Amino acid sequence: MKVALYLIPVTLGDSPIDLVIPSHNRYVIQNIRHFIVENERSARRFIKKIDPAIEIDDLQFYILNKHTSPEVLAAFLSPIFKGEPVGLLSEAGCPAIADPGADIVAIGQKMNVQIVPLVGPSSILLSLMASGFNGQNFAFRGYLPIEAEQRIKTLKKIEQSIYNQDQTQIFIETPYRNSKLVDDILKNCRPTTKLCLAADITCDNEFIKTLTIQEWSKKVPKLEKRPCIFLLYK
Amino acid sequence: MKVALYLIPVTLGDSPIDLVIPSHNRYVIQNIRHFIVENERSARRFIKKIDPAIEIDDLQFYILNKHTSPEVLAAFLSPIFKGEPVGLLSEAGCPAIADPGADIVAIGQKMNVQIVPLVGPSSILLSLMASGFNGQNFAFRGYLPIEAEQRIKTLKKIEQSIYNQDQTQIFIETPYRNSKLVDDILKNCRPTTKLCLAADITCDNEFIKTLTIQEWSKKVPKLEKRPCIFLLYK
Repeated sequence: MKVALYLIPVTLGDSPIDLVIPSHNRYVIQNIRHFIVENERSARRFIKKIDPAIEIDDLQFYILNKHTSPEVLAAFLSPIFKGEPVGLLSEAGCPAIADPGADIVAIGQKMNVQIVPLVGPSSILLSLMASGFNGQNFAFRGYLPIEAEQRIKTLKKIEQSIYNQDQTQIFIETPYRNSKLVDDILKNCRPTTKLCLAADITCDNEFIKTLTIQEWSKKVPKLEKRPCIFLLYK
Repeated sequence: MKVALYLIPVTLGDSPIDLVIPSHNRYVIQNIRHFIVENERSARRFIKKIDPAIEIDDLQFYILNKHTSPEVLAAFLSPIFKGEPVGLLSEAGCPAIADPGADIVAIGQKMNVQIVPLVGPSSILLSLMASGFNGQNFAFRGYLPIEAEQRIKTLKKIEQSIYNQDQTQIFIETPYRNSKLVDDILKNCRPTTKLCLAADITCDNEFIKTLTIQEWSKKVPKLEKRPCIFLLYK
């Protein structure tokens, strides 16, 4: 196996490994002893799920968060220079997409480390595929501002990009604020604009539905506490 | 298995199935007899690769391209209303992302068909993960204009979005025009802007490298005829 920084996707929610993770990823994980992780507990749980035979206590975990300094991040990659591969796991989905992993990848690129991204579930990509929206031009905006006035301004601005640029708009929210966000969308976007709500992607109760704002207004969905992706298009 | 429209990702280039496709996808494909495809020959080859035991001649293929009318597309989904699942395959990567599949998904959403996106390789997502660029705010722009003046104008405009909006910019090109595009980027973007070149993703000769425009200018890469993703960020 190449001595590289492997970007290892993690299951979303409780979905089984074989549903969303190629078997090659298991082989890669079995051959790595150094893992950079957001949360050690969930990383241990995922690795155990991948292969219960792996001796978790023999592995080295390096904790990554927004506050980890660039110097510490660079040190996390040092096993590579001694000939040992390193894995990067996020808490859910694909590392470095909508999570803090991108910083360590950027440092790896600067240090001329080989970066190997592995295939796995991305709720952003899966929801875009299933939305029926433009997949040739799209923007992922992360979280919208929390403050009411700013939030509505941003919402209206990104709605403009649908019509001006023919661009699908994708964003996320902390699950406990989902209802508030749906409310803001239904109140502030054009009745004919389409909204795709995608919740619990790859899980048993997966829900992905596209309707116009007008149609959603007649049956406001309950998404409280469900991880959800929001997509807007014309 | 649910009676639904399954969105089935395909390998990129010659990469082995187990490297990039979860084993669940094999099970789904084994249980589908109706496939909407861009290219029948490559779809048959992929299905044979997934499971050589599948009787390809018993399967029904429906050909999808830019010119297929909405009425014909809607008819492609009719097996679902008779209780039979339908699969959508693109030529490479994830259906409905940077290819014509999105139209049929939109029709499916309108007809209230359940849409189930499956996990698989997306060169856009994999290159973004490995670029080290902002994964919390990014835009995929598809192809840039071909005409020289328009193309440079677009390039400068999207470069602005990196600095104004802190947004990673992603785009593609027809492989035989890759060198021309690299040339345009190196000539027209700021020396400090970073360019990630990602070629032959998931294949043996995978190449993913981030450098500044200034650095690339000293060693212009040869990407002729290699499928490539271009990413810009600060």
